[in-house]
Amino acid sequence: MPFTTPFADRLNNVETSAIRELFKLLGKPGIISFAGGFPDSALFDVDGIREAVNAALTEEAGAALQYGATEGYQPLREQLAAFMASKGNQGVGANDLIVTTGSQQALDLLGKTLVSPGDKVIVEGPTFLATIQCFRLYGADLVTAPVDGDGVQTDALERLIVEHKPKFIYLIPTFGNPSGAMLSLERRKRVLELAVQHQVLVVEDDPYGDLYFGEAPPPSLLALSAQVPGSRDHLVHCGSLSKVLSPGLRVGWMVGPAELLAKATMCKQFSDAHTSTFAQATAAQYLKAGRMPATLAKVRAVYAERAAAMGDALRSDLGDAISFVQPQGGLFVWARLTGAGGKTADGGQLAKRAIDQGVAFVPGAPFYTNHPDHATLRLSFATVGVDRIREGVARLKAAL
Amino acid sequence: MPFTTPFADRLNNVETSAIRELFKLLGKPGIISFAGGFPDSALFDVDGIREAVNAALTEEAGAALQYGATEGYQPLREQLAAFMASKGNQGVGANDLIVTTGSQQALDLLGKTLVSPGDKVIVEGPTFLATIQCFRLYGADLVTAPVDGDGVQTDALERLIVEHKPKFIYLIPTFGNPSGAMLSLERRKRVLELAVQHQVLVVEDDPYGDLYFGEAPPPSLLALSAQVPGSRDHLVHCGSLSKVLSPGLRVGWMVGPAELLAKATMCKQFSDAHTSTFAQATAAQYLKAGRMPATLAKVRAVYAERAAAMGDALRSDLGDAISFVQPQGGLFVWARLTGAGGKTADGGQLAKRAIDQGVAFVPGAPFYTNHPDHATLRLSFATVGVDRIREGVARLKAAL
Repeated sequence: MPFTTPFADRLNNVETSAIRELFKLLGKPGIISFAGGFPDSALFDVDGIREAVNAALTEEAGAALQYGATEGYQPLREQLAAFMASKGNQGVGANDLIVTTGSQQALDLLGKTLVSPGDKVIVEGPTFLATIQCFRLYGADLVTAPVDGDGVQTDALERLIVEHKPKFIYLIPTFGNPSGAMLSLERRKRVLELAVQHQVLVVEDDPYGDLYFGEAPPPSLLALSAQVPGSRDHLVHCGSLSKVLSPGLRVGWMVGPAELLAKATMCKQFSDAHTSTFAQATAAQYLKAGRMPATLAKVRAVYAERAAAMGDALRSDLGDAISFVQPQGGLFVWARLTGAGGKTADGGQLAKRAIDQGVAFVPGAPFYTNHPDHATLRLSFATVGVDRIREGVARLKAAL
Repeated sequence: MPFTTPFADRLNNVETSAIRELFKLLGKPGIISFAGGFPDSALFDVDGIREAVNAALTEEAGAALQYGATEGYQPLREQLAAFMASKGNQGVGANDLIVTTGSQQALDLLGKTLVSPGDKVIVEGPTFLATIQCFRLYGADLVTAPVDGDGVQTDALERLIVEHKPKFIYLIPTFGNPSGAMLSLERRKRVLELAVQHQVLVVEDDPYGDLYFGEAPPPSLLALSAQVPGSRDHLVHCGSLSKVLSPGLRVGWMVGPAELLAKATMCKQFSDAHTSTFAQATAAQYLKAGRMPATLAKVRAVYAERAAAMGDALRSDLGDAISFVQPQGGLFVWARLTGAGGKTADGGQLAKRAIDQGVAFVPGAPFYTNHPDHATLRLSFATVGVDRIREGVARLKAAL
């Protein structure tokens, strides 16, 4: 007998990702993968994490292994508040944030807490795939705001706010996945003004902001909210240790208005009771030990070198067949096939040919909620050494 | 300005727990608490967990700190399958289960995957509080099946199945929270027959089955399903390491039909991407090291002694003012005030008086979805030493 119980209606709103199918092909021997969306595990500070977990098990084993508060382990909340302050986000106390099981869970809790079926939510086009599906599972009707090299276009965003009266606006303002774009300072202020003016909640997802290569990016929306009166009441900020320290800890956090955090905490109680206290105590000890600045410096330097190598190789090997903005941080080059010289301008087609040549990347179309731009590609330089990046781009040239 | 964004309609289905209010009173100095629902942190095998996490960071740091498969870390899935087999659950391979962030997340994924607003779900009366709220957040309309000392009454259950055609039936067959009841072997078989006969899914939540004091309880529904043809197609089994090893790891698992696990995995991808690989690799190393049998023996012996002490004290101090079935496992005594001798038969009233006397417990009424039995109480013996149990029951006598 097959399984006969009907699934919930909400599952009709999501589909298995096209990217998952592509990932199945990545097992091919010798393939160079630009397809990932994760940090390089060779950069993890294993010794630092080992010291941290051993300190946690020595100093606070009872708490680190027991059930904990749904809002988060208090020593970690305090360390995260200090970490946020060190990045220029003033006025965020330990109780102004809750710990989440990775920032993915922050998105899930926002969906669970805020989205009724049919509610409009504005996202960037393109945006993070798991966000699209996460919000759709709660019945969100997604509206796409256009993005350029300076991030979301605020004039278009305002028109969409007026037209759709969304429940909230979801943005990755700094080195977004997949666009790599960085929202300009001017537009950041404008977004906060729009939040106040239209009384609309803005969600700033910021997993990549720490990974800048040269100058620091403009302040986060959260940091800038001090300059725009009233905007903190309409702002959620999601942070994560996944891209710098370790995704395996599953430690993220969410800063937001007290009323929202209270409801999100109630929902989290029934989602997973609390985030692993074992992981939380480890993260707290790591931050307390003061290792984060050196870890940040290291990963920034390595990713900067790889991003530069990929940009140089793409420009010299692919020339005018491809266009892209050189990323100033993050893990991704977001590029567009121009079709110059009669070459293919279809990212999906090129992805298949590239696999045959021994290199993989993710076509850009699935990152759009609608009107996909089929000429786009997402290339991650994060997990590939400089020589292999050059070799991979050479294979891409052959595929093209 | 207050927060002005309206919350999702689904939040109207849940309320802040009455128990949470009570827990705020527990900070009173010198109070003896029978109110908890958690294991004793003094029993955690800290040395074993320390060895396990250090082995994980030595042998598999890259995997333990990186993103992992949503279905679970494969070495842990294999260890969990072996653990299940050691408890008599044959035919459960590593790929027949997915790892969840505590078994609370298994409940959440069942709600997300299966429950459309208005769907009926049958639960026991009384049942686990966080289950009630978890399913209600997805819009479930809960129907209560009556429980006695032998667990859920299967005749009544069948009538409710026919009347309500539920999406699924949620049971804690072994030492349930709060009832402590143990479903008899005969009724276990009957539940599986009902599942096949009415083509209805049964969810067996089994966080306490390992904590038996004398003889082992009857086989799990999962183990017995081998004897009832077709029943495995209508059965989900949720397991957890929280009550025996450590709640702080947040490692649970769910065994079920492949079609259901596939959808639950998709939903989990958007809930938290995956359970902490750091915690999963640690749990896998712990199980692999073969420490579990000794840990089980230790916790069973300690909780058995405490359960006996509480039962003896309740009988000798409270006499015919209270009635209960002596628990054969788990963490709880579920009792009923009889009103004998003109004493109070209101658990909520007694809970308040008890706090004044320096002892806390949880009144039973909130554990019912409807028609609460206000005479009931839940007393946990798990975290209190034998002498303090006797003192606590003496205070209860004074309160009564």
